Amino acid sequence: MSVDLGGAHALLMIGDTERNADLYYATRFRAPDPFVFVWTETEKILMVSNLELDRARAQAQVDRVLASAHYENLVRQAGEETPSPNRVLLGMLRHLGLQSLRVPADFPLEPADFLRQAGIQIDVAPAPLFPARQVKTSEEIAATRAAMQAAERGMAVAVEAIWGASMRDGTLYLEGEVLTSERVRRLIHLELMGLDCTASRTIVACGPQSCDPHQEGSGPLRAGEPIIIDIFPRDNNTGYFGDITRTVVKGAAPPALRALYDTVHRGQQLALERVAAGVDGRQIHQAVLDLFTDAGYETGERDGHMQGFFHSTGHGLGLEIHEEPRIGPRAQVLRAGQVVTVEPGLYYPELGGVRLEVLLYKWCKTSTPIYPGLDYLYLGIWRKTQI
Amino acid sequence: MSVDLGGAHALLMIGDTERNADLYYATRFRAPDPFVFVWTETEKILMVSNLELDRARAQAQVDRVLASAHYENLVRQAGEETPSPNRVLLGMLRHLGLQSLRVPADFPLEPADFLRQAGIQIDVAPAPLFPARQVKTSEEIAATRAAMQAAERGMAVAVEAIWGASMRDGTLYLEGEVLTSERVRRLIHLELMGLDCTASRTIVACGPQSCDPHQEGSGPLRAGEPIIIDIFPRDNNTGYFGDITRTVVKGAAPPALRALYDTVHRGQQLALERVAAGVDGRQIHQAVLDLFTDAGYETGERDGHMQGFFHSTGHGLGLEIHEEPRIGPRAQVLRAGQVVTVEPGLYYPELGGVRLEVLLYKWCKTSTPIYPGLDYLYLGIWRKTQI
Repeated sequence: MSVDLGGAHALLMIGDTERNADLYYATRFRAPDPFVFVWTETEKILMVSNLELDRARAQAQVDRVLASAHYENLVRQAGEETPSPNRVLLGMLRHLGLQSLRVPADFPLEPADFLRQAGIQIDVAPAPLFPARQVKTSEEIAATRAAMQAAERGMAVAVEAIWGASMRDGTLYLEGEVLTSERVRRLIHLELMGLDCTASRTIVACGPQSCDPHQEGSGPLRAGEPIIIDIFPRDNNTGYFGDITRTVVKGAAPPALRALYDTVHRGQQLALERVAAGVDGRQIHQAVLDLFTDAGYETGERDGHMQGFFHSTGHGLGLEIHEEPRIGPRAQVLRAGQVVTVEPGLYYPELGGVRLEVLLYKWCKTSTPIYPGLDYLYLGIWRKTQI
Repeated sequence: MSVDLGGAHALLMIGDTERNADLYYATRFRAPDPFVFVWTETEKILMVSNLELDRARAQAQVDRVLASAHYENLVRQAGEETPSPNRVLLGMLRHLGLQSLRVPADFPLEPADFLRQAGIQIDVAPAPLFPARQVKTSEEIAATRAAMQAAERGMAVAVEAIWGASMRDGTLYLEGEVLTSERVRRLIHLELMGLDCTASRTIVACGPQSCDPHQEGSGPLRAGEPIIIDIFPRDNNTGYFGDITRTVVKGAAPPALRALYDTVHRGQQLALERVAAGVDGRQIHQAVLDLFTDAGYETGERDGHMQGFFHSTGHGLGLEIHEEPRIGPRAQVLRAGQVVTVEPGLYYPELGGVRLEVLLYKWCKTSTPIYPGLDYLYLGIWRKTQI
C-alpha cells in the first residue's frame, strides 16, 4: 500500500478510528480518542498519548509510534505552560522536517488554519483519499462475508418469527404475546450478539412506518401489511459491515402491494444485470427509476411528502455502512473489485414501502451475485435457498 | 438555546449525527448521512436530501427544513450537469444571503477552502462550540441516569457471574464451563440489550490484560488476579452514555494487589472530595498523581512500557463517551452542572491493573455522589449498597 503525496512531504491525518474509517484503513489501529498520523514517502508514523503507546506499538500497522508527551515537554520547555494540541503537532512536524502536507477533505479547519499561519503548506488531497479502499482485498472480502452471514442469520431469525406467528384481528402473535417491531429487533440483535456483531438502528417497520426508509419501526406487527427488515451489523473483530434488506408480508398481501413488490424486484434485477466494471452508476440508477416510472410508479413530492423511489440504488460497503462508490444520481464509474449493495425501493402512503437489498462483489467476473445467501423473500412466502 | 455568532451571519455545520455530537445537540435530528445545518440570529435551518426530508420535518428541532434537491436543480439550471455538494452549499448560502460564517473547529477543510475562494468569510468559532452542552439540563440528567442504571445492571450481572463462579486450578468456572472474558461480556451485553442500550468495547480484562486500559480482554478468567470491568453503554433512545468501572478479584487477593486497590480507592476519594465548581481539573489530577507517587507508585515508562497512572482522572459524559470537561493534565476549570466521571487507575506488569470509576453530577451542591448506585466493589467482596 502506498500513498500519492502529489509532491508534498507527507499525508497528515488527525482523528479517532471509531469515526474515521480512512484513518483505520491506513493504520489498522483502533482507538476511541484522536491521534495523529503522518505518512511520508518512506514511513507511516503515529503520534499517540501515553495511554495508547503500548497498544499502538503492538497493534498499529505503522513504522514508528511517537509519544505526544515527548513533544508536549518540548513545547513546555519552550515556555508554553499548557501545550495546545496545535503546538504539539507543529513541534512534531518541524522535528520530522515536514513543511508541506496533504490532508483529507474532512481534515479539521482549525488545525489547518493554525499550521498554515505557522508557514506549513496544507493542501487537500483529491478524493477519494485512498482509491484502493474501494477495491477489496481477499481479507476484506472474507470480513464482509462474515458480517453478511451474520446479517443473514439475523434476517432468518426475524423472518422465522414472522412466519411462525399467528394472526388475530390482523395483529401478529408469537407464543401468546403480541409480536412487535421491538421484539423482532431484539431477536435479531440477540442472534447478532452471539455472532460477535453489533447492530444498531435495525429497521423492522410495518405498514405506514415502512414508507420512511430510515424509520426504525415500533409497535405491533400487522398481517397483510409490508414489513421492511433492514439489518446492518458490524463485526466487532474486523470492523466490517454487512447490510441486508427484505420485505415480507404475513398472510394475504393485497394485489396492489404484490404488484409493488414485483416492480421493486424487477428494478433490482435490472440493476443487478447492469452492474459491471466501467459502467456509470448514475445510468444504472436512472434505468431503475425509469423502469418504475414506466410501470406507473411516479417519484416526487405529494402532499408535502416524498413518495416513489427517492433514495439511491446502492452504495459501497466495508468499514463504513455507506461508503464509495454510490449507485445513485451522481456520476460515478464502477470498478472491478468493489463491493456494492443493490437496494431499490418504492414507498407510497396508501400501500406502504418495499425495499430489497442484496450485496454484490467481484461482479467484474459475473453479473449475478456470487454470494449464495438467503434469496429474495417473496410476499407471504419465504423461499429459502441454500445458506 | 442561542448561539454566539461573534458578528457573523450564521453558524454553519456539516456532518452526520451518528458521529457529530454537537450537531445532534443543536438539531436533535438523528441521521446517519451528512446534512447541512445553518443557525442564524433568528432561525435554525437544515438542508437534507429527499430521503431525509419527511423525517427531518417531523423530528428535527429546527425552524425550517430545505431540500438539497431544490438547490441541486438550481445548480443544474446554471449549467453544471452534476452539482457538487460544494456548489449546492454555496447556492443555499447565497439564497439565504449569508456571506460570513462561523464554523466549528472540526469543520472540514475542503468545503471551507471552497467557500473562502467563493468570497464567503469563514472563521472558526472559539471552543467549546456550545458551552451550554457541558451544563446538563434535567432531561439530560435523566437520560444519563437511565444509561447509568443500565450500566450498573450490566455490572451487577458481571460481578454476580464472577462471584458465583467456582475455582479449579486457578481458573474460574460457571455452570461447569470455563468463565471467560468473552462470556462475561456477552452476559453484560445481553442485560444491556434488554434495557435498550448498546455497548461496544466493553472491557473484561484479567491479570496481565488489565495493565492496558484499552484492552478489552479475552480468554479464561483467573482467581487471585484483578479483573477490570469497564462498561459504557449508550441508550438507544436518547443517545446518552453511561460509564462505570470496577475491579474485582475472585478468591484471595495477594497483599500487594490489595494495597494497589486501596491506593486507587484513596486516590478516587481524594478526587471526589476535590471536585467542585471553580476548581481546576488539572489540580485534582495532579493531587491524585502525587498521592500515588507519595504512596510509592511511580508513573512513567519502564522497559518500553508505560506504568503507574498514565491516563486522566476523569471526563465529561453525555452524548459522547469522552467529552468536555476533562479532569487531566490540561488546565480546565470545572463548572456547576457538569457531569464527570472520576476514574483513577494504577497499572503495573507484576501486579496487574486497578481502575475505579464513578459518575458525579450536581456536585455544585455536594462533594459526594448523589447517585445512589452500586458502591465500590472491594477486593473479593461485593459490597452492595442500595440500587
